[in-house]
Amino acid sequence: MITPADVLVAQRRIAPWVRETPVIRWDEHPSRPIVKLEALQVTGSFKARGAFNRVLAAQEVGAIGEAGVIGASGGNAGLALAYAAHRLGIHAEIVVPETSSPVKLERLRTLGATVVVHGQRYGDAYDFALARQQVSGALFVHAYDQEEVVAGQGTAGLEFLDQAGGLDVVVVAAGGGGLVAGIRLAMPEHTRVIAVEPTLAPTIRRAIEAGGPVDVEVAGVAADSLGARRCGDLAYHLLSSMGVESVLVDEEEMIVARQRLWDEFRLVGEYGGVAALAALLAGKIETNENDRLGIIFCGANSDPSDLVKQVSNDQG
Amino acid sequence: MITPADVLVAQRRIAPWVRETPVIRWDEHPSRPIVKLEALQVTGSFKARGAFNRVLAAQEVGAIGEAGVIGASGGNAGLALAYAAHRLGIHAEIVVPETSSPVKLERLRTLGATVVVHGQRYGDAYDFALARQQVSGALFVHAYDQEEVVAGQGTAGLEFLDQAGGLDVVVVAAGGGGLVAGIRLAMPEHTRVIAVEPTLAPTIRRAIEAGGPVDVEVAGVAADSLGARRCGDLAYHLLSSMGVESVLVDEEEMIVARQRLWDEFRLVGEYGGVAALAALLAGKIETNENDRLGIIFCGANSDPSDLVKQVSNDQG
Ligand SMILES: Cc1ncc(COP(=O)(O)O)c(C=O)c1O
Ligand SMILES: Cc1ncc(COP(=O)(O)O)c(C=O)c1O
Repeated sequence: MITPADVLVAQRRIAPWVRETPVIRWDEHPSRPIVKLEALQVTGSFKARGAFNRVLAAQEVGAIGEAGVIGASGGNAGLALAYAAHRLGIHAEIVVPETSSPVKLERLRTLGATVVVHGQRYGDAYDFALARQQVSGALFVHAYDQEEVVAGQGTAGLEFLDQAGGLDVVVVAAGGGGLVAGIRLAMPEHTRVIAVEPTLAPTIRRAIEAGGPVDVEVAGVAADSLGARRCGDLAYHLLSSMGVESVLVDEEEMIVARQRLWDEFRLVGEYGGVAALAALLAGKIETNENDRLGIIFCGANSDPSDLVKQVSNDQG
Repeated sequence: MITPADVLVAQRRIAPWVRETPVIRWDEHPSRPIVKLEALQVTGSFKARGAFNRVLAAQEVGAIGEAGVIGASGGNAGLALAYAAHRLGIHAEIVVPETSSPVKLERLRTLGATVVVHGQRYGDAYDFALARQQVSGALFVHAYDQEEVVAGQGTAGLEFLDQAGGLDVVVVAAGGGGLVAGIRLAMPEHTRVIAVEPTLAPTIRRAIEAGGPVDVEVAGVAADSLGARRCGDLAYHLLSSMGVESVLVDEEEMIVARQRLWDEFRLVGEYGGVAALAALLAGKIETNENDRLGIIFCGANSDPSDLVKQVSNDQG
């Protein structure tokens, strides 16, 4: 099992490659949350932390050969892995399902990755990547269910804790659970950690209910980021042993939160990235007075065309 | 003449009402700048600082009556003034030219301001606001050329200095010069301050050449924020006595910078807001090795529809 020390190691390891993302205090909101702007991370999401930690840790022990690294994801995890490999001068192969947008494939290719299109669904691409790995000997980098990945995501939590000067409650979006598990690990025991999932993709909620990870049907506006079909084993064990609260948000709540983030801060979020904020805005986060409340805004890879209500074109 | 002490006073005065905006280090860029994200300020630009300082200072000495405050601007200054008045429970009248977009008038009205549409150009609206002020007795709040406004904008500089742990060079967009003058005041003498203006709106450059503020023809993509026709008297005196460097950026350089800001950070900038960044990206900021370089990103009130090259809609 990984421990908080692994997060500290990860922090030192990835520091030259990732950004210390800023925080902003939202004092106009009654709960006075402090918001971590992790969407300003390289590649537009926290996924770069886990990807760099996994790849660098393997590099340290000479576990990366000519074949480089391989992963399955047409989303933020794939982008982060392609970027990390690019920066480190390593070859990356990214397997994506046929449904991936051409724009995204182009983006992966621009980073020098070999893009393999395979299968109708993400699960097909994932299975194919595992099979390819057996042949090529590349290092497989999971989107959430590997120790170095979870520890890497946890560095966002350590950083946040430091910037906030302590946190009593921290609210985190969850898909496969890599981010929220890493954050749980990084926080002191007394800090409440709240995992927010879409009602249409409740993998952690179902795992808690079932006493272990189970497959879940996923859909909805945040499916591209929070739509893992199953909570990771690592995340489940960490969260169930250390304690986590589960909150669900519906489609409308994420849509409203994304618009609100733009209106208040002129920040563009993707639906998964604003799920934690959505839970707060929907009144689903209960805190005590004077609780130091942290919200993680964790992804920005979204088309902002629909956000604008105000256009500036006068002088003065 | 205002002094650095006025900026300190302003900082204490406006602290409950404005945000401490975050900074982010851009270590992937060869000059390793630290960027102040002042566009995350309430109302989407630094203008809230000056507006609050002017209004609060007047309130302290009982100089605001029933008529409240008045200003001329369909842009960021007007928005900031309407917002400040709204938060402080004061009536605001904002005079805007006929060219202002309906969306913007709506936004001002939502904040409770009385919006008066007058004249074809900004200058007409401005003259009308001054005349109205004579009749109504409202407090006139200038967009850049008043001591409390300049001192208020300077608080962004104090904050930046503190967050950066010192700065050797700081690059600032300039229209009427209120922001750059405030920043000059806030910085230690040895810090180089660089005012960046569009080639199509070079009011500070022309004032320096002419030995005093002169009227300038203004146009271009940033005219809505940097298109003051004349450098403020206060700004001119401050900058010419304390020292400032002038850099011009062309239209294309601002367009490129705005796209780059999105690609690198998923941040939406308006053209005026990214002028300082444009100067850096265009290779127009010369620094010595190890110089601590600060860039102010100061406005986000822009339609982001054209920015996106990457849309996210796959799982993983
Ligand atoms: C923006 C964003 N937020 C949250 C998540 C969920 O992360 P995890 O799968 O580690 O729970 C993802 C995963 O891709 C994401 O891209
Ligand atoms: C975004 C932005 N940047 C810069 C400026 C220039 O400020 P100043 O007129 O104080 O030079 C403005 C003025 O409206 C602005 O809105």
